[in-house]
Amino acid sequence: MWEPGGCESQVKIETEKEKMMKYIDTLREGMHVSDVYLCKNKQIALTKAGKEYGNLTLQDKTGTIDAKIWDLSSPGVGNFETLDYIFVDGDVTVFMNSNQLNIKRVRKVNEGEYIAADYLPVSSKNIEVMYTELLTLIQSLKNPYLKKLADSFFVEDQAFAKAFQFHSAAKSVHHGFVGGLLEHTLSVTKMCKYFAGSYPQLNRDLLLTAAMFHDIGKIKELSIFPANDYTDEGQLLGHIIIGTEMVSDRIRTIPGFPEKLATELKHCILAHHGELEYGSPKKPAILEALALNFADNADAKLETMIEVLNGAGDNLGWLGYNRLLETNIRKTSE
Amino acid sequence: MWEPGGCESQVKIETEKEKMMKYIDTLREGMHVSDVYLCKNKQIALTKAGKEYGNLTLQDKTGTIDAKIWDLSSPGVGNFETLDYIFVDGDVTVFMNSNQLNIKRVRKVNEGEYIAADYLPVSSKNIEVMYTELLTLIQSLKNPYLKKLADSFFVEDQAFAKAFQFHSAAKSVHHGFVGGLLEHTLSVTKMCKYFAGSYPQLNRDLLLTAAMFHDIGKIKELSIFPANDYTDEGQLLGHIIIGTEMVSDRIRTIPGFPEKLATELKHCILAHHGELEYGSPKKPAILEALALNFADNADAKLETMIEVLNGAGDNLGWLGYNRLLETNIRKTSE
Amino acid sequence: MWEPGGCESQVKIETEKEKMMKYIDTLREGMHVSDVYLCKNKQIALTKAGKEYGNLTLQDKTGTIDAKIWDLSSPGVGNFETLDYIFVDGDVTVFMNSNQLNIKRVRKVNEGEYIAADYLPVSSKNIEVMYTELLTLIQSLKNPYLKKLADSFFVEDQAFAKAFQFHSAAKSVHHGFVGGLLEHTLSVTKMCKYFAGSYPQLNRDLLLTAAMFHDIGKIKELSIFPANDYTDEGQLLGHIIIGTEMVSDRIRTIPGFPEKLATELKHCILAHHGELEYGSPKKPAILEALALNFADNADAKLETMIEVLNGAGDNLGWLGYNRLLETNIRKTSE
Amino acid sequence: MWEPGGCESQVKIETEKEKMMKYIDTLREGMHVSDVYLCKNKQIALTKAGKEYGNLTLQDKTGTIDAKIWDLSSPGVGNFETLDYIFVDGDVTVFMNSNQLNIKRVRKVNEGEYIAADYLPVSSKNIEVMYTELLTLIQSLKNPYLKKLADSFFVEDQAFAKAFQFHSAAKSVHHGFVGGLLEHTLSVTKMCKYFAGSYPQLNRDLLLTAAMFHDIGKIKELSIFPANDYTDEGQLLGHIIIGTEMVSDRIRTIPGFPEKLATELKHCILAHHGELEYGSPKKPAILEALALNFADNADAKLETMIEVLNGAGDNLGWLGYNRLLETNIRKTSE
Amino acid sequence: MWEPGGCESQVKIETEKEKMMKYIDTLREGMHVSDVYLCKNKQIALTKAGKEYGNLTLQDKTGTIDAKIWDLSSPGVGNFETLDYIFVDGDVTVFMNSNQLNIKRVRKVNEGEYIAADYLPVSSKNIEVMYTELLTLIQSLKNPYLKKLADSFFVEDQAFAKAFQFHSAAKSVHHGFVGGLLEHTLSVTKMCKYFAGSYPQLNRDLLLTAAMFHDIGKIKELSIFPANDYTDEGQLLGHIIIGTEMVSDRIRTIPGFPEKLATELKHCILAHHGELEYGSPKKPAILEALALNFADNADAKLETMIEVLNGAGDNLGWLGYNRLLETNIRKTSE
Amino acid sequence: MWEPGGCESQVKIETEKEKMMKYIDTLREGMHVSDVYLCKNKQIALTKAGKEYGNLTLQDKTGTIDAKIWDLSSPGVGNFETLDYIFVDGDVTVFMNSNQLNIKRVRKVNEGEYIAADYLPVSSKNIEVMYTELLTLIQSLKNPYLKKLADSFFVEDQAFAKAFQFHSAAKSVHHGFVGGLLEHTLSVTKMCKYFAGSYPQLNRDLLLTAAMFHDIGKIKELSIFPANDYTDEGQLLGHIIIGTEMVSDRIRTIPGFPEKLATELKHCILAHHGELEYGSPKKPAILEALALNFADNADAKLETMIEVLNGAGDNLGWLGYNRLLETNIRKTSE
Repeated sequence: MWEPGGCESQVKIETEKEKMMKYIDTLREGMHVSDVYLCKNKQIALTKAGKEYGNLTLQDKTGTIDAKIWDLSSPGVGNFETLDYIFVDGDVTVFMNSNQLNIKRVRKVNEGEYIAADYLPVSSKNIEVMYTELLTLIQSLKNPYLKKLADSFFVEDQAFAKAFQFHSAAKSVHHGFVGGLLEHTLSVTKMCKYFAGSYPQLNRDLLLTAAMFHDIGKIKELSIFPANDYTDEGQLLGHIIIGTEMVSDRIRTIPGFPEKLATELKHCILAHHGELEYGSPKKPAILEALALNFADNADAKLETMIEVLNGAGDNLGWLGYNRLLETNIRKTSE
Repeated sequence: MWEPGGCESQVKIETEKEKMMKYIDTLREGMHVSDVYLCKNKQIALTKAGKEYGNLTLQDKTGTIDAKIWDLSSPGVGNFETLDYIFVDGDVTVFMNSNQLNIKRVRKVNEGEYIAADYLPVSSKNIEVMYTELLTLIQSLKNPYLKKLADSFFVEDQAFAKAFQFHSAAKSVHHGFVGGLLEHTLSVTKMCKYFAGSYPQLNRDLLLTAAMFHDIGKIKELSIFPANDYTDEGQLLGHIIIGTEMVSDRIRTIPGFPEKLATELKHCILAHHGELEYGSPKKPAILEALALNFADNADAKLETMIEVLNGAGDNLGWLGYNRLLETNIRKTSE
Repeated sequence: MWEPGGCESQVKIETEKEKMMKYIDTLREGMHVSDVYLCKNKQIALTKAGKEYGNLTLQDKTGTIDAKIWDLSSPGVGNFETLDYIFVDGDVTVFMNSNQLNIKRVRKVNEGEYIAADYLPVSSKNIEVMYTELLTLIQSLKNPYLKKLADSFFVEDQAFAKAFQFHSAAKSVHHGFVGGLLEHTLSVTKMCKYFAGSYPQLNRDLLLTAAMFHDIGKIKELSIFPANDYTDEGQLLGHIIIGTEMVSDRIRTIPGFPEKLATELKHCILAHHGELEYGSPKKPAILEALALNFADNADAKLETMIEVLNGAGDNLGWLGYNRLLETNIRKTSE
Repeated sequence: MWEPGGCESQVKIETEKEKMMKYIDTLREGMHVSDVYLCKNKQIALTKAGKEYGNLTLQDKTGTIDAKIWDLSSPGVGNFETLDYIFVDGDVTVFMNSNQLNIKRVRKVNEGEYIAADYLPVSSKNIEVMYTELLTLIQSLKNPYLKKLADSFFVEDQAFAKAFQFHSAAKSVHHGFVGGLLEHTLSVTKMCKYFAGSYPQLNRDLLLTAAMFHDIGKIKELSIFPANDYTDEGQLLGHIIIGTEMVSDRIRTIPGFPEKLATELKHCILAHHGELEYGSPKKPAILEALALNFADNADAKLETMIEVLNGAGDNLGWLGYNRLLETNIRKTSE
Repeated sequence: MWEPGGCESQVKIETEKEKMMKYIDTLREGMHVSDVYLCKNKQIALTKAGKEYGNLTLQDKTGTIDAKIWDLSSPGVGNFETLDYIFVDGDVTVFMNSNQLNIKRVRKVNEGEYIAADYLPVSSKNIEVMYTELLTLIQSLKNPYLKKLADSFFVEDQAFAKAFQFHSAAKSVHHGFVGGLLEHTLSVTKMCKYFAGSYPQLNRDLLLTAAMFHDIGKIKELSIFPANDYTDEGQLLGHIIIGTEMVSDRIRTIPGFPEKLATELKHCILAHHGELEYGSPKKPAILEALALNFADNADAKLETMIEVLNGAGDNLGWLGYNRLLETNIRKTSE
Repeated sequence: MWEPGGCESQVKIETEKEKMMKYIDTLREGMHVSDVYLCKNKQIALTKAGKEYGNLTLQDKTGTIDAKIWDLSSPGVGNFETLDYIFVDGDVTVFMNSNQLNIKRVRKVNEGEYIAADYLPVSSKNIEVMYTELLTLIQSLKNPYLKKLADSFFVEDQAFAKAFQFHSAAKSVHHGFVGGLLEHTLSVTKMCKYFAGSYPQLNRDLLLTAAMFHDIGKIKELSIFPANDYTDEGQLLGHIIIGTEMVSDRIRTIPGFPEKLATELKHCILAHHGELEYGSPKKPAILEALALNFADNADAKLETMIEVLNGAGDNLGWLGYNRLLETNIRKTSE
């Protein structure tokens, strides 16, 4: 499990650590590796000659690498399972244009032997700074009921606040990293603040509150890192319904919360995907719901393309058909 | 407002009443009318000659008729508004192949002067008998948590029980009459019982409970008769979300209700429209959700066609393109 | 070819046989196998070292297994082709988490050496019992023309009756096994009987007859087991058109068959897929066609999910995205 | 009823007739009319003042005109029904930019008093010439079975031949006039002949035969002029299925007709709409079916636009959104 | 024609004028009117009694009103045509819940007798101020080629600059008023500026330039007020293609304009509708094209809803199904 | 690079060459090969044993073959890259039912050592003959402006003329070979000529000119052989926009070219894909645009199926689901 305290000192530890371990995105053919990695997946396969071998995916926060244990009966090969942290000793080769790690020795390590944050993809932005920015936006709310609601989650509910900072916003697609939910929520909320400044017809407090809460259901829809997979509740209900219910339940604890305002806030969360076929049971019927839908969609799609372009490194050419954007894409020329 | 007590003595009163009043579906050209009707809609229009006249829609349980008050300044014409019950005196004519009532005198009547049940479209089946049938199905549930949940609504919650028997299942489309929600719910639940008998893989108790609750959100989505229109909550949240939340809240009052069972029941309600584009935020992911979706869809579509065919009276020919069924339809030949 | 007589004594023979042969779903790593299987597919491939080997798919009624013949020139390896029954001698290993059979010796067997029914996936229900149930339903028809039509196929046409009991209802998807067409037809017909009981507006005889005949075109659309693949006629015309024509031709042999009834019956068959994009050239335009469409669709989709869930064995978790149901699915919790 | 013999002498009679009657497309405001027209539709309506009047649609081969009988009780107004031929006496006025005929006197006429061909929209091309052209194409078929099939319909079956020449190809949309089915069929067949010359891979005889038969089901799908409406069979089965069955039945009377060729021909007819959602139960799977689909679609859409443009007369501007072509259209500039 | 000089002194003149004329949105039943209005549409119709009357739509910048001239032969009724400015004398009545003007006298006026700006719907924002804001954004561009391109249109091309300030952004839907193109363009450009600040991966200069030019094709797609209808070029080519060609042509006059930058800019304009089915021949393939698509869509849809809500005046209830937003909408509760 | 002069003597050289080289479609298992081929693709892979080997795709005008260099360090293996022409020495084997070339020796060759035309897929029709046919069609144009425009490209612009004859019409799908653009353009233009003869309402000169130019944008959308891949301009703008701009620019050099005619011609090019979702920013709004759309679509789809059927050789059975035609296909029976 991720060490919550690690969040505060994240920057410093990472600097030290970089001297010590070989991150996956720095591995090159011929390197020797003796380090701890997260075993994201483990399978036993059979060579043509009928011999069993281990087929692994190792992960750290910079990416993943395929790894093989050709001799499973070697004395240096210990027991471990998927999602264990393992110390591996081996060499980097290239197969079909991709790096591969041929493992000679492997053992499961104990909790003290690694820093979990090194093995999880993490937001490139400072989590503390982002959270402070979100709290400042909450302080700017003038409607006492909406402010009380936001406070009750983000300020007073410590467990929620920690989970919210740690969570990803997706299994993959975009913002699929530690702090991703916070980063996406903050980005959407700030865009909504821009909208509220540009279109005076918008109810600023309702819009900003809806933005802050629009994806909180993801806390229960996705399990925490390193698994980061859909939960049973997430599969059966989805984050839109879960989040609406979380907000609905909390509102009942706030005396005098106007009923119409509660319904409008829930509607904004329900309708934030914009279209029925994207999982929203209602289309945006009030102006704030429409604005939230655009902010969410713009941030999600722009971040999706940015992550793909970043992943392309120095490649300035066409990157091939992208299934999410439904077109071939490339970086802009300068 | 509908007189709840009227439910018990519905059959007898109607028999007496039929002798006294002229139901709309019995009006013919040349008849004189002196009776009370519900004014479903009232507008003031202008003749070509620039004179104001009243343009009304009158309703009783057998249908609606257009009515005109050509002389609004006549001493016999009193004040009234949309959704008032009014006594009218006039003659039936035919305009463009439809009946029309030319009103000479009109006045608003008091509560004692009419029996509300005469003026609302009402299920052709006996409401008490249907409700008893539903209660019997509840008694057949073996899972104690599901039975307790069903009891807590249908047996112990008197306000809910009355509302459930009185409510329609739709603004129009199908089951849009008093008792319609009960009739549709019972029909779906019985079809689910048939499914549970035919496909032993189905969890009978989960399926039947989901069937009983699948549309209860309509109690808040639609206002009661005679208005029978979408409420603000209905517009913004929809009956699927409202119903899921009603069930979710009640479950929390039942100690020990298994969490997985609760999530599965809520999933069945959420997914009962079957497709995202029909407003379900999730597609059916367990067998009971799939079965409920088919039962709901089959009863809704069959009833839709049946109501259109019934409305056609003796017409055995083609009835024209039906927007809901997306085809021209006709009665079967014998 | 399947031995028609085997149908009558199906249950007993299987019991005996189980003592003698190792069914594919019982094979485990390390077992030795000396038995006859159906060779569903045979290909010659090349190892990296450039040597030819045999790549087979073997089938019995419990499933399929990949098999390899590494040494094609071995004296124990005889000639055979796809869809031959072969005796194989070899060992079970595991490759990529799946069983694999390494064959040492193989020879084609003669008709007397195996019981075809052992090698074909077969309905889990008793074919004779199901057929008797269908005949009883036919006897309940009151319309003399429809009853005569049903009799002429299911009672008087022995070749048809045998083929109908033996046929599958699909190449894969659902009911893709011996007796599948009968099982699906009976299930749909019984659901239609339930509908006829619940919605008195339905013409019971027309609906039940349409249900019995709705998929008979599959007899010519799919070739018989073990091939069970689309025929040329099936590809070019499809079972909907083939079945409509079969019924149309037979009706002409029945003097006095009412023309309108014939057209309505043909319409029900044509429209049973419900939507043009699913291959029905007409949408359901009469009530019986609509009811048949729901019964067919409900049985097909429920059976599809049931077969996937059954195939998952003890797996109570999420089974991954299902292309036909367009969602991730899992078994219900208890 | 249309006088079949009229076909042969069509040209001459029309020339004479033009001197005698005022065709609807020549009526102008202020003209007096004393002529026979087909009453396509008749309804009784009510003026604001509550008086009944007659609301008619009159038709001749050049178009339709709205007509009113303001005084139904006038001694000059006789009895008649929809689809009667009537002699009318009245004046042309303009209402809402359209011509309107105010009828003073009216009586139903007898069969000898009019020439049916004057009152039906009719192909602008000579029916005899077109039919001869089609027969010549049949004579060019080299495959004896296909030629025999075509002969058996177009040459030997006199009733079919007459009906085929007289029928329209549509209720409206395109080719909705006497001779329209022949005109469309010939145009498609000639385009297929062009295709066969350009793409040598096409089987010319199969393609041309399929073209000749592709819409023959329309003979039973639409009732004859002047009604020209969908028949019961047309509504329930559609011309694609009716036509396939007509061809299938005739083929069986031709000894030795190759089975594969029969299936391919039927497939071409079934698939000629090209897409399932346009009512073809199969997509084109052989080259001839694909070519026929293009020829049918091109002729149908081009003729649709041509008829709209012709209907616009001298209007060289934009004609407004066309529902069939899904765009605003106009005539080309020169 | 609109008086260009009117733009500079727009605010003052309107203030004076308001004292003099009765704007359409202030008319109430019973008022007498003696003022100049734009005749947006004129038709001659026929009363039931067969008498011609004039059916007009009058317009000023606050809205439109139906008007009737019952007595066309009155000496006070002069000649005029659609799109003339006319002085009318008449009374306001109510017909079917809408205002109607019964005109007694009418004459066409000369250019000096009215101020065109009073009769056109006009942006609620100051055109000069908005244009200055746009020029300031142009000055902030650092890329010399893009700045030169923007200057060449917005600074150096006086005819373009005037037209750009005067044009609407649509025939209806949203921003369909004088200054609408400028208002929409500025709003989109400022949102793009916000995006460029939030997503550092965006090329700010390319994005802002693309935003300024994205809709300039509308200058040729729509004719100017008061007609404001699609031009022939607009119908056949559309503003996306027209605008791309305008930019492409101008780029060629700028020596050394980088070819890749030109292609990327043109791509942004082509792709700004985001989807092929919305008329963009390419989907956004670079990040700036994606950002522009979101900014354009967000401003267009939000403005669409804002204009509908503003049009509803004090109505806080549900406004009915909105075809563009595909849902029923209402104002937010406070 | 392809030798343009080779075009004139194409037929003769091929005849000689066939005696000298082994074309890929004639290779059979066991053959020895010593010839020059185009290396369409080259990758370095790793065997299970961890040894590098070369994985190539070789191409000549008759097809492609997979090739392996198992021993990259052999002295006979020289340096070369993707798209080089290479001399290879090796043996043909069969792996997984496909031919494979095991290369022993390989070296890059110089320009004089091969005839480029042998290595590129090339139209089966004579390029010179087709071009002459196109020029004849140009000479038949009567409109002086359209003829001048066509001349300026096809007659006077030598560089364009050569490129046009050499270009393919697609990366794959259909007409993806040298001369393919010419072959498709000629076929479409001739079909349009047929349409102009059959539908006299068509403006023949506009239609034929539009046909000749409809795909000229492909000259810039696709790079030339052997790469034949999308250019940057092609990805960002597409051939529809590029071609429209090419025509638009050239028209401006022709004094007096009627503006409406220019817009109509550009519209035909823009709209030739027929539907927005196929990349046309406008639907066909004039008759010539509609006709061009049908001709382009018919030729493209028929050629697509023809190329697939030709590729199937002697296979008369079903060829499997074709993604472009969205159905399983087969050759016609005779």
